[in-house]
Amino acid sequence: MSIITIERKILEKNDQIAAQNRENFKKKKIFVLNMVSSPGSGKTSILENTIGILKGKVNIAVIEGDVQTDLDAKRVDKYNVPVVQIVTNGACHLDAKLVQDALSSMALKETGILFIENVGNLVCPSGYDLGEDMKVSILSTAEGDDKPLKYPAMFRNSSVLIINKIDLLPYINCKIDELIKNALLINSSLKIFKTSCTTGEGINEWCNWLQEQIHNKS
Amino acid sequence: MSIITIERKILEKNDQIAAQNRENFKKKKIFVLNMVSSPGSGKTSILENTIGILKGKVNIAVIEGDVQTDLDAKRVDKYNVPVVQIVTNGACHLDAKLVQDALSSMALKETGILFIENVGNLVCPSGYDLGEDMKVSILSTAEGDDKPLKYPAMFRNSSVLIINKIDLLPYINCKIDELIKNALLINSSLKIFKTSCTTGEGINEWCNWLQEQIHNKS
Repeated sequence: MSIITIERKILEKNDQIAAQNRENFKKKKIFVLNMVSSPGSGKTSILENTIGILKGKVNIAVIEGDVQTDLDAKRVDKYNVPVVQIVTNGACHLDAKLVQDALSSMALKETGILFIENVGNLVCPSGYDLGEDMKVSILSTAEGDDKPLKYPAMFRNSSVLIINKIDLLPYINCKIDELIKNALLINSSLKIFKTSCTTGEGINEWCNWLQEQIHNKS
Repeated sequence: MSIITIERKILEKNDQIAAQNRENFKKKKIFVLNMVSSPGSGKTSILENTIGILKGKVNIAVIEGDVQTDLDAKRVDKYNVPVVQIVTNGACHLDAKLVQDALSSMALKETGILFIENVGNLVCPSGYDLGEDMKVSILSTAEGDDKPLKYPAMFRNSSVLIINKIDLLPYINCKIDELIKNALLINSSLKIFKTSCTTGEGINEWCNWLQEQIHNKS
């Protein structure tokens, strides 16, 4: 029982700092996406493709969250956008304080977009508000069509689902209609995109939609 | 500081119960594997293939751990082996107490093998001893060759790494030699198998090795 109380305290404290982050983002008119998924779903590849298309049209910044290494930050850094790496040293999710600390070392330009790439984990990051406008779940087709049912919290708490690696569908046992049906069973208001970072399919649709959201916020 | 203390207490309590589980397994001469991986790496498929080959040669039992649903237990149940489903209701890993409770409802036959399929999560289950003989990490090639570097604790704490979905290698950006090099950098004593549940490649090698381990324990 005491453990539950402490967990609640941790989450309450997190929510307070998340609210501060959200206020900060609102003032600066920055649209903030918390990118969540299992390891290896293609979060960083989606990010690289998105930055490639949106760069020059909108101010972009990135926070990379990883248990270890700065491999992802190095990938994003090639695109010459501001990027800060948070290494959690074993912790299984980002929290609002880590993001707040990262923000203090970033020169965020007004009216833009901030991508926060969370630790690869389909369970724990779902419970931690970072102050984002929305969570975006990425799910690789190779993970299978039953995942929304088996890990519902992440899909329930997301506004967008990107189904990535659709180029692999001919080679794997994943029925994409079943996947979409399962995702909508958990969260009927999910906005769904189908993408491949190998063929480029679906990336433009996702980027066009993103630009509309930024336009609506600014 | 108090949080760290409480985490330590939780882990100490877990280790005590894990030791009881281990003693129980030792008495009954049961070889116990804790199967850990990201969601969708193919843990259940590996398990189905393994049971298909080993059934009739050795007593098999299964504990399935999932955040939600009994989909995996239903898949395993078709093989007519004793299976208990633990639904963690949001918790991101199994712990020794959950396994102990599951064991109390199982009629474990002596001299056999128990597979514990953990929650799909490449971070949190690495820290929780369940009383197993060894952790077996499963990694899908579709997750990419950098994962051992980015999620080192799981690979450091495992005795075996099964690299699954090798049939997808022609279609994806994953260099298997690089993956193996990265895994051995983190843990040079890892026993590595390369498998595909679609083609069946590597499953016999894995099962032969398993039978040797059971023989050595009994």
